[in-house]
Amino acid sequence: MGNVTLKNIAEILGISITTVSKALKDYPDVNKETRDSVRLLAEKLDYKPNPLAINLRNKESKTLGVIIPRVDHNFYSTVVNGIITEAEDRGYLVIILFSGDSSSLEEDQVKLLLEKRVDGVLMSMATETEEIGHIKELIKKKIPLVLFDKTTEEISCSKVRIDDKKASFKAVEYLIETGCKNIVHFRGPLPPQAYTDRFLGYKEALEKHNITYDPSNVYVCDELTFNEGYEFTKKALEEHPETDAIFAMTDLVALGSLAYCQANGIRVPDQISIMGFSNWFMSQNSTPKLSTVHQPIKELGKEAISILIEEIQQRKNEFPVKHFTAQLPTEVIARGTTR
Amino acid sequence: MGNVTLKNIAEILGISITTVSKALKDYPDVNKETRDSVRLLAEKLDYKPNPLAINLRNKESKTLGVIIPRVDHNFYSTVVNGIITEAEDRGYLVIILFSGDSSSLEEDQVKLLLEKRVDGVLMSMATETEEIGHIKELIKKKIPLVLFDKTTEEISCSKVRIDDKKASFKAVEYLIETGCKNIVHFRGPLPPQAYTDRFLGYKEALEKHNITYDPSNVYVCDELTFNEGYEFTKKALEEHPETDAIFAMTDLVALGSLAYCQANGIRVPDQISIMGFSNWFMSQNSTPKLSTVHQPIKELGKEAISILIEEIQQRKNEFPVKHFTAQLPTEVIARGTTR
Repeated sequence: MGNVTLKNIAEILGISITTVSKALKDYPDVNKETRDSVRLLAEKLDYKPNPLAINLRNKESKTLGVIIPRVDHNFYSTVVNGIITEAEDRGYLVIILFSGDSSSLEEDQVKLLLEKRVDGVLMSMATETEEIGHIKELIKKKIPLVLFDKTTEEISCSKVRIDDKKASFKAVEYLIETGCKNIVHFRGPLPPQAYTDRFLGYKEALEKHNITYDPSNVYVCDELTFNEGYEFTKKALEEHPETDAIFAMTDLVALGSLAYCQANGIRVPDQISIMGFSNWFMSQNSTPKLSTVHQPIKELGKEAISILIEEIQQRKNEFPVKHFTAQLPTEVIARGTTR
Repeated sequence: MGNVTLKNIAEILGISITTVSKALKDYPDVNKETRDSVRLLAEKLDYKPNPLAINLRNKESKTLGVIIPRVDHNFYSTVVNGIITEAEDRGYLVIILFSGDSSSLEEDQVKLLLEKRVDGVLMSMATETEEIGHIKELIKKKIPLVLFDKTTEEISCSKVRIDDKKASFKAVEYLIETGCKNIVHFRGPLPPQAYTDRFLGYKEALEKHNITYDPSNVYVCDELTFNEGYEFTKKALEEHPETDAIFAMTDLVALGSLAYCQANGIRVPDQISIMGFSNWFMSQNSTPKLSTVHQPIKELGKEAISILIEEIQQRKNEFPVKHFTAQLPTEVIARGTTR
């Protein structure tokens, strides 16, 4: 048989549903004999209280909503790994929705989560999102919200992200300290802010070390692919033959640079140093291995869930809720493509 | 204010909750005046019916449970992409849980989904799962279940998978037809069945073309890494200098083989042909590009959701439920590492 209900038990015993319900909850106005027979039958039939009904009473669904642009990308699949792992440990289920990087789909997904009465929402904004009315709606309804990765200053809530500017600053400083002076940067598109922050870190490191910033040394990758890394390296070395280092937005772009150098007899790192970003597992599978910046991506997901659950607890206990921004630290990993 | 309830509306208007509820549902025993004032206030306060309560009445949660071993792996993140995309299109939410490839955690996750009363379950079994009592429990409770990727003959339910044996057969046949005779195979561990099926396809192709099968030509990768591909290629070429082709379990292992050949001046494909498996996006980012077998991974996720929703509908309408196994077709993609 399917799921056993209170009604099933009541019918079998020939008593009312209310009596069954009271018996299971140990109410004193049900006599011991009835109570025992209800409990025995409930056990035999493997009766389980309907959790939807329980949730309705508790007003907690123990379910969190997560909206991300996509998952077929190493960054998001790693974040999701951290999110689900941490939520599972804390007794929460996770409903994952995609915005497909579309602002209007993101709006629909927020509405859906509101209807489903999730206890809290975790969100990495779609790249194109500029209208933020739907996110403000969450705040207005007092649904705990934490933004991660792609965030905005315009929303007052807790945020978790990588300190991209500092990470990038340290990477470029490492290149300078190991003797590079003519450093080209392959940046990502704008928005999101993170890509601009990495560019700003690059610029700041040059300035700190008295190297003149030359805008023509910066190339914009639209899709951050291996091929863009390959082609821009060709272009950069033609336009700037004095180049002695390449700092790429992501490891995949950096691997494209490395492939171009290898195919054209350019020695890495003797002639050109190459630095990636993110410490993707493939960065260890090249020869030489790729130097890069380690981002604690899984930890980012865990931290975001932690902060969200804390906020849910605070609201439940009517404690004042404090928002804060966590910036997770990064680390330069020097391998074989830098001096 | 938070979420508006029927009680809020009742208190403001000084009428009973039942009357508010009836008014919103257009019951004839509520007079027009009361009905209008309830509706006006509900609209003003942006009242939304509690979906948990609605679900309780409909006995449908419009939520599907998915249990997968992990998501930080290209195969699963691509499958999950297909699953969520298709479920969203069909109006279902998806709760994703990890088994971490542990049989006992898998058991806990099944229990959790049972408690949450999901409408159906989609599952790729943990590699180590041999006791299947928890999966049979789902069948007993008449919860629609579809197994995908890692499945077992011992459970009677619908299944969706790649035809691994045939895929592998076609890949090895391609190598033979392009002139290779001494083909080494880097296989994966057993279980799961899929890895054994790929090995069987390799063996069958040799036999069909009258090439004697030599067990010492088969190397077992424990973790299917780039390094295993690199090291086993070294070993295989030492032990079998006559080798003219390598067929690897996954693209990552094949990329390791390619890297070994390139580092040691072995010409690919002139001296050695290399064939991968899965058509991972990185297989297009090597020089030469990797020949491989395309697996329709995203389609696998979509197909699994389709079958699951169909079964949910059949049960709901009390139609007889038919189980079937869908084997999705694959394709050999010949690129630069084969002749």
